[in-house]
Amino acid sequence: MPSYAAPVRDQRFIIDEVLGLSAETGLPNAGEATPDIVQAILEEAGKFAAEVIAPLNAAGDREGCARSGDGSVRTPGGFPEAFTAFSEAGWGTISAPVEYGGQGMPRVLGVAIQELMSSANMAFAMYPGLTNGAIEALLAVGSDELKQRYVPSMVSGKWTGTMNLTEPQCGTDLGLIRTRAEPGADGSYVITGTKIFISAGEHDMAANIVHLVLARTPDAPAGTKGISLFVVPKFLVNTDGSLGERNAVSCGALEHKMGIHANATCVMNYDGATGWMVGEENKGLAAMFIMMNAARLGVGVQGLAVAEVAYQNGVSYARERRQGRALAGPADPSEKADLLIVHPDVRRMLMEARAFIEGMRGLALWGGLLVELADNGDETADDLIGLLTPVIKGYGTDMGYKVATDMQQIWGGHGYITDNGMEQFVRDARIAMIYEGANGVQAMDLVGRKLARNGGRAMQAFFNLVDQECAEGKTQERLAHVAVRIEKANAELKAATMWFMQNAMMKPDNAGAGAYAYMHMLGIVALGLMWLRMGKAALRVSAGEGGDREFLEAKLVTATFFAERFTPLVGALRRQIESGSDTTMALPAHAF
Amino acid sequence: MPSYAAPVRDQRFIIDEVLGLSAETGLPNAGEATPDIVQAILEEAGKFAAEVIAPLNAAGDREGCARSGDGSVRTPGGFPEAFTAFSEAGWGTISAPVEYGGQGMPRVLGVAIQELMSSANMAFAMYPGLTNGAIEALLAVGSDELKQRYVPSMVSGKWTGTMNLTEPQCGTDLGLIRTRAEPGADGSYVITGTKIFISAGEHDMAANIVHLVLARTPDAPAGTKGISLFVVPKFLVNTDGSLGERNAVSCGALEHKMGIHANATCVMNYDGATGWMVGEENKGLAAMFIMMNAARLGVGVQGLAVAEVAYQNGVSYARERRQGRALAGPADPSEKADLLIVHPDVRRMLMEARAFIEGMRGLALWGGLLVELADNGDETADDLIGLLTPVIKGYGTDMGYKVATDMQQIWGGHGYITDNGMEQFVRDARIAMIYEGANGVQAMDLVGRKLARNGGRAMQAFFNLVDQECAEGKTQERLAHVAVRIEKANAELKAATMWFMQNAMMKPDNAGAGAYAYMHMLGIVALGLMWLRMGKAALRVSAGEGGDREFLEAKLVTATFFAERFTPLVGALRRQIESGSDTTMALPAHAF
Repeated sequence: MPSYAAPVRDQRFIIDEVLGLSAETGLPNAGEATPDIVQAILEEAGKFAAEVIAPLNAAGDREGCARSGDGSVRTPGGFPEAFTAFSEAGWGTISAPVEYGGQGMPRVLGVAIQELMSSANMAFAMYPGLTNGAIEALLAVGSDELKQRYVPSMVSGKWTGTMNLTEPQCGTDLGLIRTRAEPGADGSYVITGTKIFISAGEHDMAANIVHLVLARTPDAPAGTKGISLFVVPKFLVNTDGSLGERNAVSCGALEHKMGIHANATCVMNYDGATGWMVGEENKGLAAMFIMMNAARLGVGVQGLAVAEVAYQNGVSYARERRQGRALAGPADPSEKADLLIVHPDVRRMLMEARAFIEGMRGLALWGGLLVELADNGDETADDLIGLLTPVIKGYGTDMGYKVATDMQQIWGGHGYITDNGMEQFVRDARIAMIYEGANGVQAMDLVGRKLARNGGRAMQAFFNLVDQECAEGKTQERLAHVAVRIEKANAELKAATMWFMQNAMMKPDNAGAGAYAYMHMLGIVALGLMWLRMGKAALRVSAGEGGDREFLEAKLVTATFFAERFTPLVGALRRQIESGSDTTMALPAHAF
Repeated sequence: MPSYAAPVRDQRFIIDEVLGLSAETGLPNAGEATPDIVQAILEEAGKFAAEVIAPLNAAGDREGCARSGDGSVRTPGGFPEAFTAFSEAGWGTISAPVEYGGQGMPRVLGVAIQELMSSANMAFAMYPGLTNGAIEALLAVGSDELKQRYVPSMVSGKWTGTMNLTEPQCGTDLGLIRTRAEPGADGSYVITGTKIFISAGEHDMAANIVHLVLARTPDAPAGTKGISLFVVPKFLVNTDGSLGERNAVSCGALEHKMGIHANATCVMNYDGATGWMVGEENKGLAAMFIMMNAARLGVGVQGLAVAEVAYQNGVSYARERRQGRALAGPADPSEKADLLIVHPDVRRMLMEARAFIEGMRGLALWGGLLVELADNGDETADDLIGLLTPVIKGYGTDMGYKVATDMQQIWGGHGYITDNGMEQFVRDARIAMIYEGANGVQAMDLVGRKLARNGGRAMQAFFNLVDQECAEGKTQERLAHVAVRIEKANAELKAATMWFMQNAMMKPDNAGAGAYAYMHMLGIVALGLMWLRMGKAALRVSAGEGGDREFLEAKLVTATFFAERFTPLVGALRRQIESGSDTTMALPAHAF
C-alpha cells in the first residue's frame, strides 16, 4: 500500500521564501498568512490528508461508486464520513470569502491544500474541488439572491456543486450544446436535456447538489453565443434555506472508467428540471469560463499532486529494494545486492520527478497568487495568469502522467500489480490530461488566443520576467550555469514566438501544428523561471542563520539538474514548430 | 468497441520491397517466401486475428482469469477454443523447424504474424509467444531426448511453455535466485522454490505446460554463475509421449494487474517438483538468454502491435467525430462542425503514430531477418541484432505506450471510458515497458554491454549502414531533405558514442546516467534508417508500373514527417547525455 506524507516543508519554502506571501505581495489578506499561520494550517491539512483521506484511496479505487435503480449513487465506504470531517475542518474553503462562511485566506493556501488533498486521494478531492469552482462562478456572475441562497451551504460543505457542460455530441465544441431552457412563469426556467461526464453529479456525501448547467433559451443564437448558465439544484431550496421538493434532475448512469473510480462520473438527465439563470442571457460561456479557469488551475495541481505521491512511493521503493550492484562496485558489500537508488537510471527518474514536482509546485502556487492579484486589479498578473493557465493545466498534467509512469517503472513488475498502488496513480493521472479541456485544446488556447491578446503583452511580460531572473542568476556563482541555460531556452521560446507571428497569421495551421510543442516549451521555461527563483531564495536563506542546509543544497542541485536535463528539449521543440504544418496536413483524410 | 484490420499491405511492402525477403536475403528458406506466399499467409493470419481473437480482447479484459481452490486457472470465455483454432491453423509456429512439426518459413513471417495477433489481443498472443520462446531455448541447448520429448507437442500447440526467472527477492538481479535443484536418483532433479510473475503459468488452454525454470544445484557458485536451467512439466511425460502423473508444481495465486487481465500471471510453487536439466550445469543464464532475446524482440513487437490497433481506432474516431472548425474556416460548411481530423493537433498525433508504427514495423521485421541471418552464420547480422534488440524492446515499447496514450487522447473523455476500449490499449501497452527486462535494463544492456563488445564493431556497422543510406538518399530529390536530417541525427549519435568512450570508462555512472537517452537516440536513428529504406523502395516501385501511388506517396510524406519531427529530439538527448552523471548522483539517498 502506498504511503503519503505532506510536503509541507517544500510548500512553505515557496510560500514564505519564494513568493514572500505575507511580506511582499501587497494582497489585502496576505498579512494574515504569516509564516507561523501558514505552517500551522498546512501541517494540520497535511495531517488530515495523510491520516483521513489517503487511507481511503486504494479502497475507493477498488470499490468504486454504485448506482441504484432509483438513480441514487453510493460513494465508497468512508467517503461520506471523511467529507463531513473535511468540511467541518474547513479545508475546502480556506480561501473562500468570510461573508459566506469561508476563512478569507489568500488563495495560495487554497492551492497548497488542494495539492495535499489531491495527492492523498484525487477522486475524493474532486468533490470539494468542483464545489469550489461552482462557488466561484456564482460569486462572479450570480445575483445577490442566488449567492445568498446557495453559496453559504456550499462553503460549509453541506452541499456540493458540479459543472455541466458536455453532452453526447459536444465536448470541446460547446457551440453544439442542445440542452434547452424554457422560461417558466416565475422567472425560473425549465431545463431539458442530457449531460454526460458530470463528475460528482450524484452521490451520498451531501444533502444537496448544486448543478451549474449550460443550456439554450428558445431564441438563442446558434453556436457559443447562444448559451446561458443556469443553477439547477438537486433539491429545490425554500426561501428559508430549507430543502424543498426533489428537482427533475437525476443520474441516468455511471461511467466505468480507467481511473478515479471513487468519483461518480454521471450521465445527468434533466427532465424539465427547474433552474435559474446565472448572469446574463447568452453570456453563459463567459460565466462558465470563470469556473473553467479555476478548474484548469486545479487540474494542473492534480498533475503535480499525483506526481508527488507517486514520487514518494518511488523513493521509498528505491531506498528499500535491493537489486544489482552499483556500476563502480558494491555500495553495500555486506549485502547481496545494493539498493535501487544507487543506479544512475533510477536516479535519473527520481531527479526528473523532483525537478518537475518542485518547479511545478512553485508555478502552481505562483499561479494561485497571480489569480488573486488579478482579482485585486493587477493587470500584469491578469495577463500572466491568462497565459500560464493552459500551461499549468497542459504541461502540468502531461508531466504528472509521465512522472507517475516513471515512478511505477522504478517498481518494476511490482508496479504493475494493483495491490501496490502505483498503477492507480497512472490511471488517475491520465484523466487530468483529458478533462477541463483536453491538453491539445489548452495548447490552442495558449497559441491561438493568449499569445496574441493585447498585442502579445502577456508574453512580453513573461519574457521580461525570465530575462530579469536570468540576468540576476548569472551574477551568482551557484546559479550562473542554470541561468545561462534557461536564458538560452528563453531565447528559443522567443524565436518560436516570432516564428508564429511571421508564419501563422496567414496560415493558421502553422499555429495549430506547433501549438503543443510550444505549450511544452513554455512549460519548461516557466519551470526554469521558478527554479531560478527557488535557487535565489535558497542562496539567500542559506547565507543567513538557521536554514536547513541540506534542504537548501538539494534545491541548488535540483535546479542544476533541471537546467541540464529539461532545457535541451526546448531547442528540439522549437525545431518541430519551425517545420510548420505542410507535412502534418499533407495526407488526405482517407489515407490514414 | 474497437475494431481491427490487419495492415497486410504495409507488412508486405516491407517484406517484399524493403527487405526483399525472397529475392535478396540469401536465406536457405527464403525462396519459399515469395510475394504470393507471403500475401496468402498474412491475409489468412490477419483474417484470423481480426475475426477470431480480436473479438475476445475487451471481454477478456473484463472477465480476466480466475483461480480455483485446487490451483487450476480458468481463462476468459472463448480463449481455449480460440487457442485450439490458432494452433490447428499453425499460426504460432510458422517459422518453427519442419522436423518438429513447424512450417520452416523465414522468421520474418513469424514476426509479422506475431504483430497481427498481438494487435488483435495482446493477452491472448502471449500464450503462444511464450511457448515459442521456450521452444527456442530447448532447441538451442536441450539434449536430443528433451527436444524429442517436449518440442513437437509445443509446436503443435497441444502444450504451451513458460519461462520462470523472477522470485520475490529477485527480478532484474538473477544472481539472487534461491530456487533449489537437488539431483535425484535417475538423472532428474527435485525442484523447490517460488517463482512469481509467471505469465501463462497455469491455464486451461492446453493439456500440458512446460515450465523452463532457473534454479541452483547444491554446490553451485553464488550469483549468476551458479544458475542452471530445468524443464519442469506440469504433467510428467511418459516415454511414449503420453501424459503421466501430475508434477509437484502448482499455481499458488494469480496477480491482479493494471492490464493484460486475460493472461494468467501466476505465483508458481515448486514443491519438490521433478525437473530435468537443460544444457550444462551453471550455464542456465546463457540458455535463458536465448529465450530472453527472442522474447525481447517479441515484446518490442507488442509495443508496435498495440500502437497499431490504437492508431486504427484513433483514426476512425478522428474521421467520424465532429467537433470544432478547421482553423482556416469550415471544411464542411453544411455540417455544424468539422471532423476531428481537420485539426492540426489531431493530425500531429496521428502522423507521429504513423511515423513510429511504420518505421518500427520495418525495424522489427528487419530484426526478425537479422536473427535468422545470424543463425546462418552472418557475423554482421549477429552484431546488429545484438545491438538492436534492446532498442527494439526499450524504444519500441516506450513509444508503443506513448502512441496508445495519444490515440486515447484523440477520443477525449470518451477515451477514458472502459467500454470504448482505448484505455485498455494503454493499460496493456504499459507492461511491455516493464517485463522481459525493464526498459532501463535494456538501456544498460545497450550501453554497458552491446556498445563496447568487440571493440564497438556492431555500432560501427550500424553507423556505416546509416551513412550509406543517407548518401544514397541525398541523391534523390524527394528524399534529400529526409537524408540530411537523418545524417545529422547519426552524427549526434556518433558524438554521444564518442562521449561515452571518453567519459564512461573511468566513471561508469556517466554511462548509466546517459544510457536511457542513448537508447532513444539509437531508436530514432534506427527508425530513420528504415524510413530512408522505405522511401527508397517507394520511389523505386513508384517509378515502375502498377504501384499503389497513394500508398507510396504516403510513405514519402511520412518519411518527411519523421525527419522533421523525430530527429530534432536526437540533439536534445545528446546534450542530456553530455551533462554527465555528477548532478544526477549528487544528492545523498536520504535527501530524496
